[in-house]
Amino acid sequence: MKASQLLLTVDLRAAGESMHAFATELYPTCRSITGDGLRTTLKRIGRQIPLEIQEVATGTTVFDWSVPREWNIRDAWIKNSRGEKVVDFQKSNLHVVQYSVPVQRRISLDELKTHLYSLPDRPDWIPYRTSYYQETWGFCLTHRQLEKLEPGEYEVKIDSTLAEGSLSYGEHFLRGRTADEVLLSCHVCHPSLANDNLSGVALSVKLAEILGGCSLKYSYRFLFIPGTIGSITWLARNSERARQIQHGLVVTCVGDSGGLHYKRSRRGDAEIDRAVIKALRDRRQPLEVRDFSPYGYDERQYCSPGFNLPVGSLTRSPHGTFAQYHTSADNLDFIRPEALSDSLAAYLAVISVLEGNSRYQNLNPWCEPQLGRRGLYRALGGFADAGQMELAFLWVLNLSDATHSLLDIAERADLPFELIEQAAETLVAHGLLEERLV
Amino acid sequence: MKASQLLLTVDLRAAGESMHAFATELYPTCRSITGDGLRTTLKRIGRQIPLEIQEVATGTTVFDWSVPREWNIRDAWIKNSRGEKVVDFQKSNLHVVQYSVPVQRRISLDELKTHLYSLPDRPDWIPYRTSYYQETWGFCLTHRQLEKLEPGEYEVKIDSTLAEGSLSYGEHFLRGRTADEVLLSCHVCHPSLANDNLSGVALSVKLAEILGGCSLKYSYRFLFIPGTIGSITWLARNSERARQIQHGLVVTCVGDSGGLHYKRSRRGDAEIDRAVIKALRDRRQPLEVRDFSPYGYDERQYCSPGFNLPVGSLTRSPHGTFAQYHTSADNLDFIRPEALSDSLAAYLAVISVLEGNSRYQNLNPWCEPQLGRRGLYRALGGFADAGQMELAFLWVLNLSDATHSLLDIAERADLPFELIEQAAETLVAHGLLEERLV
Amino acid sequence: MKASQLLLTVDLRAAGESMHAFATELYPTCRSITGDGLRTTLKRIGRQIPLEIQEVATGTTVFDWSVPREWNIRDAWIKNSRGEKVVDFQKSNLHVVQYSVPVQRRISLDELKTHLYSLPDRPDWIPYRTSYYQETWGFCLTHRQLEKLEPGEYEVKIDSTLAEGSLSYGEHFLRGRTADEVLLSCHVCHPSLANDNLSGVALSVKLAEILGGCSLKYSYRFLFIPGTIGSITWLARNSERARQIQHGLVVTCVGDSGGLHYKRSRRGDAEIDRAVIKALRDRRQPLEVRDFSPYGYDERQYCSPGFNLPVGSLTRSPHGTFAQYHTSADNLDFIRPEALSDSLAAYLAVISVLEGNSRYQNLNPWCEPQLGRRGLYRALGGFADAGQMELAFLWVLNLSDATHSLLDIAERADLPFELIEQAAETLVAHGLLEERLV
Repeated sequence: MKASQLLLTVDLRAAGESMHAFATELYPTCRSITGDGLRTTLKRIGRQIPLEIQEVATGTTVFDWSVPREWNIRDAWIKNSRGEKVVDFQKSNLHVVQYSVPVQRRISLDELKTHLYSLPDRPDWIPYRTSYYQETWGFCLTHRQLEKLEPGEYEVKIDSTLAEGSLSYGEHFLRGRTADEVLLSCHVCHPSLANDNLSGVALSVKLAEILGGCSLKYSYRFLFIPGTIGSITWLARNSERARQIQHGLVVTCVGDSGGLHYKRSRRGDAEIDRAVIKALRDRRQPLEVRDFSPYGYDERQYCSPGFNLPVGSLTRSPHGTFAQYHTSADNLDFIRPEALSDSLAAYLAVISVLEGNSRYQNLNPWCEPQLGRRGLYRALGGFADAGQMELAFLWVLNLSDATHSLLDIAERADLPFELIEQAAETLVAHGLLEERLV
Repeated sequence: MKASQLLLTVDLRAAGESMHAFATELYPTCRSITGDGLRTTLKRIGRQIPLEIQEVATGTTVFDWSVPREWNIRDAWIKNSRGEKVVDFQKSNLHVVQYSVPVQRRISLDELKTHLYSLPDRPDWIPYRTSYYQETWGFCLTHRQLEKLEPGEYEVKIDSTLAEGSLSYGEHFLRGRTADEVLLSCHVCHPSLANDNLSGVALSVKLAEILGGCSLKYSYRFLFIPGTIGSITWLARNSERARQIQHGLVVTCVGDSGGLHYKRSRRGDAEIDRAVIKALRDRRQPLEVRDFSPYGYDERQYCSPGFNLPVGSLTRSPHGTFAQYHTSADNLDFIRPEALSDSLAAYLAVISVLEGNSRYQNLNPWCEPQLGRRGLYRALGGFADAGQMELAFLWVLNLSDATHSLLDIAERADLPFELIEQAAETLVAHGLLEERLV
Repeated sequence: MKASQLLLTVDLRAAGESMHAFATELYPTCRSITGDGLRTTLKRIGRQIPLEIQEVATGTTVFDWSVPREWNIRDAWIKNSRGEKVVDFQKSNLHVVQYSVPVQRRISLDELKTHLYSLPDRPDWIPYRTSYYQETWGFCLTHRQLEKLEPGEYEVKIDSTLAEGSLSYGEHFLRGRTADEVLLSCHVCHPSLANDNLSGVALSVKLAEILGGCSLKYSYRFLFIPGTIGSITWLARNSERARQIQHGLVVTCVGDSGGLHYKRSRRGDAEIDRAVIKALRDRRQPLEVRDFSPYGYDERQYCSPGFNLPVGSLTRSPHGTFAQYHTSADNLDFIRPEALSDSLAAYLAVISVLEGNSRYQNLNPWCEPQLGRRGLYRALGGFADAGQMELAFLWVLNLSDATHSLLDIAERADLPFELIEQAAETLVAHGLLEERLV
C-alpha cells in the first residue's frame, strides 16, 4: 500500500479508541527521565512495535551534559502528628518532586512548607515539578491540601534511590526505499500526565504500526526518549546519522480537544514546514502556525545551530498554553479518542505529502503535449473551464522543469496535493513525465 | 515619431470606430483552425498591413502534435419531417460543431439529440463547440430551438470536407533598431465571435499600422494564428527565433465593456509584467492583475517550460469569465468602439514604457551635479518641496548606477514613467547621463 | 562607561535644558553657507567640544561644484519716502534673501515688489529665502508688512559683500577601538531658525560631549557643515575616508514637539536603518518610518550613487512637513527642552544598538549547553514559561552561528536588544559564547 492511500484505509475511529486505551494502560506508571517506570513503558511499547531499547550509563558525557544518576521511587508520604497520611504518593505519583533524594524525618510545618508546591489559582490540582539537576526533595499537593495543614510536627518519607545506573530510550526503525529519514520523536519521561505526553506516545506507536504495512520512500525513525537529556543523548551518539534526517516532527500534546498548531522548524520554510501547512489546508482543517522559538520540547535540540535539522512540532494545544499543562488535570479525561484520531489523520496527511513530493521532468517541454489523443483531455472543445484534473495536468506539465517539486506545483496552482500527485502519476504512465532523482 | 508620443497623436476615437468597422467586416466569415475562412481573413488583414502568409501542410509534425487535415464547410442544416429547416448554417455559422465530418442522413430525434448542443441556462444563445481532434459531427442551437423539436424523423446534412490541405497563419514584422523582439499574438480561428477574438485581431492590425509610422527600439512581430495549434506550429518552425522575444502579449477579448485585466507571464515579474502594471497605473486606469495559470490562450504555449517566454495577456473581461464567452451573444453589439479604443490606448502606453525603458549611467555619481547652473533647478532656494520634474531629475541621478532601469526608478520614485523618461532625456542632453547598453 | 549604560546615567532633563540654552545662545547670529556668522558659530561649538575648523578657498573645485564666494552682511533696510525703516535686518536676519548682492538705490514700489517675498497664507511670518548661485538681491517680510507698503519711492540698502574668501566647516572626531566610523552630520548654515537646524547642532554637540566620556567600539565623526555645498566639499576632500563610514545619521529638526520620524538610507535595510527601528521599538516610542528619497538634507550627497553610504536621518517633524519650516515661526518657542531631550535619548538608544551589535559563535552548538549547572536556568523544572532572560539565553545560543548579529537575534526573538546583549555578555562570561570579528 502507498502512503497516499493510508487515509482511505485506516479506520480512524477505531484507531482513536485504541490510542486512548493504550494511553490509559500506561497512565498509572511513574515515569521519569531514568528508572524503572521508563523501562516498563518502553517494554510495553516494544510489545506493540519492534523497539531497540538502549541503556546509557550514568556519567556518560553527551555534549555539554552528562547522563544523570538513575532515580527510582517506591513510596512517599507526609504524615501529621496523628500519624495520618496527608499526602500519599500511592494516590498520585505527581505528589513527589521528580528526582527527590530519599528523606525520612520529623519536621515542623514551617520547614515543611519550604518543600511544598501547590497552585493557589487551581486549588484542586496537583502541579508537576522536577529537580533533575539540583539535589533536593519536595512534595506537590493541591492548594486545598496545603491550606488544611495544621501547625505542628510532621513526618516525611521519600523512599527513593538516586544512584549509578542508566538512562533508557527506545528506537523503532522502518526501512524505506531510500536511506533518507523522517524523524518522529516523542518524550516518554512524564508520570501520570495524559496529553503531555502519553498522547504523543500513543500516536507515535499507532503511526509506526500503520506505516509498517506500507511501501515507503523514506526510512522512518521513531524515538521514545526522555525529554531534553534523551534527545541530547541520542544526538550525541548519532551525530553522523542525524544528517540522514530530511524531515522531522516532535509528537506531543496531540490528544486534547483544542485545534491543531504547528511550530515551524528553525529553518522556517523547510519542506516539512510547507508539507504540514499544505496537507492541513487541503484537508480544510484549521491550523495555527507559529514561528520557531528555542523554547519548547526536543525540537530545541534538533534545531540547535550545530544540527539545524528541519524538525517542527505538530500539536493540538501547544506547550504551556493550556491550564491543565503539567498538572494533575492533564488526565485521561483531558484527552479524547476523537482528538487523537484527528491528530493521527493530520500526521498521515503530512506523511502522504512527504512521500509523494518528487520532482519530475516534462519530457515534452516545448509547448503542451497533445493530451486529447491520449484521452487525457475532453474531446469536445469550446468550454470556459477546464476540469480540475485537466488543470492539474497542465500545471504539472508547465512546472515540471526539474526545479519544481510537486509541493511547489500544488502550492502555486492552489490545487490539492493529492490531485497534483495523481496527475503526475497519470502523466508518467503516459510517458509524458519522468521522475528526477535529485 | 517616438513611441512615447503615440498617445498624444493617435486619434483614439477614430481608431475605435475603425477597429469596430474592421471587426464588423470580418464577422460573417466562418473561420476555423484551417480552411478558406481563415485564409480569406488573413488576406483581408494583408490589405491593411504587409502580411507574410504561411501554409503548413497537413501531417507536418510540430512537436508532439501534427498539423490536422483542412476543414471546409459550405452548408449545413437539419430539416424536420415536413422538410422545414429547423437549424440552418446560413443563419449562423455557430450552428455547426467545428470540424464536423460530412453527413447526410435520416435520423430519429433521439439519435439526433446525441449530436445537439444547447445552453439550458441561456435559452436564446447558440453555443460554440469544436471537435478538432476527434472525428464526429454535431449541431449547436438555442435551447428554445431544441425544445421545439418534435418527435419524428429528421434529415441532417453537413456539406463539409476534411481532407489533406494546410494550416494557414500570417506574420507581420516591423524591424526596429535592435533585433530584440516584442511579440503580439492573436488567434484568428473563431467564426462569428466578436470579442473572442475579432477584437484582438482588429486591435493588433491597428497597433501594427500605428507602430509602422514610428521609430522603434524593438522589432515587433505580430502573429495572426489559429489558437493552440497555430502557436505550436509557429514555435516549432521558429524555435531559435523565439529566443529573440524579450516581451510579449497575447491580444484577445479587448472589446467588451468590462475593466482591464492582466494575466502575468509564467515568470511572474518579467519586465512586460511590470511595464503593464506601471503603464496602467500611470494612466490611473483600474487594472486587475492575475497570476499566470497554464489555462487560457496561446500564452500556454509561449510559457511552456521549454520556452518560458515573458508573454502575458492584457484583456478586458478575461477568458471564460463573461457569460457571452463562446456563444452567439459574443456578437458585434457586445464589443464597443470606446472599449476597443481604451484597450488600444493601454497597449500603446505599455509599448511606450517598453520602448523607453533603458538603463543609464550618472556621469557625476559623486554627490549631486549642480543642476542650478544648468537651469534645471529653481534659482531661489528655501522652499519645502521640489517640483515634480526636479524630483524626477534627482531620482534619475540617484539611481542611475547602470543597475536600475528607468522602470525601476519610476516604480521606486512612484512617479509617472513618462516624467522619469523626460528627466533622463534632459539629463542626457546636458551631458549628465549616458545610456548603458546592456 | 559603555554606550549601553548611557541612557541610565545621562540626566536627560538637564541635557534638554542645556541644549535649549545652547540653541538660544546661537540663535541671533546671521549664519549662511559661508561667512563670519558661520565662523562665529563654529568657534562657539569649539568651546564645547574639540573642533577642527577647515577653511576651503572660494573657487576650489568640489566634484561638479565649486566653492562659492564668501558672503558677509552688516546691515540692510528698506526706508519709505518719509525715511522710516519699514523692513530692518537688525530686527530679523531673515529679512534679507541670503547671498543678496550689495545694493543702495531709490526704487519705485512696483520694482521693489519684484524683490520682495512674503507668505500670504501666513501673514505674520517672515519666509527664509536664499539665492546662493544666482546673483540677485531681495527682502523677505511678513505679508502684513507687504500689504502696508504705500505707493511711492523707497530707499533700499543691503550692506553686504560677496567676495573671494572661504567656506568654513567643523569636524569633531572621537577615536574608538576600531577605525570604522559612525557619521553624525548636521548643517549649521541657517540664520535665526531654531528647529532647522540649531536643534540638530545642539543635539550633536551634546551627543559628542556624552560619547566623549565613553569607551567606544566605533570611531565617531561629527560634521558641522553648511548644507549641500558643505557635505559635497567634505566628501570631495575625504572620498577615501568616507569608505570608513559604516553607519550615519543626518541630525536635523530634532526639537519640535512632533513625533519621531526616520528616513531610511538609500540602501533601505542597512544596519543603521534596522538599528533605529529596533531601538525606538524597544523604547515603545512611536516612530514613523519613511523610505529614502533623494530630496531632503545632506543624506542626498552621502547617498549619491558613487558613495551610497548607509546614512539615514532621524528627526522629529521631517523636512518641509511643518508649517513653520523655513519661516520666522521656527523660533526658540517652537523647540522644547523636553523634545530635545527625547530626541537625544533616541540617538543614544540607537548608538547603544550599534555599539552592542556584534556577531558571536556558540561554542557548544551541538544541542543546548547545560545552563542549569552554571546557574543560568531555574533549578526547579516543570513550569510553562521560561523567564525573559532564560529565553534570551536560548535565542542567543540558538542563533549564534556566526551569521546572525545580536540585532538579527533581537529582531527574530522579538525581545529587547538590551536583553539580548546582556544575555550574550553573560554567556561570554561563562565561556559559552565567543565574539566573532567579521
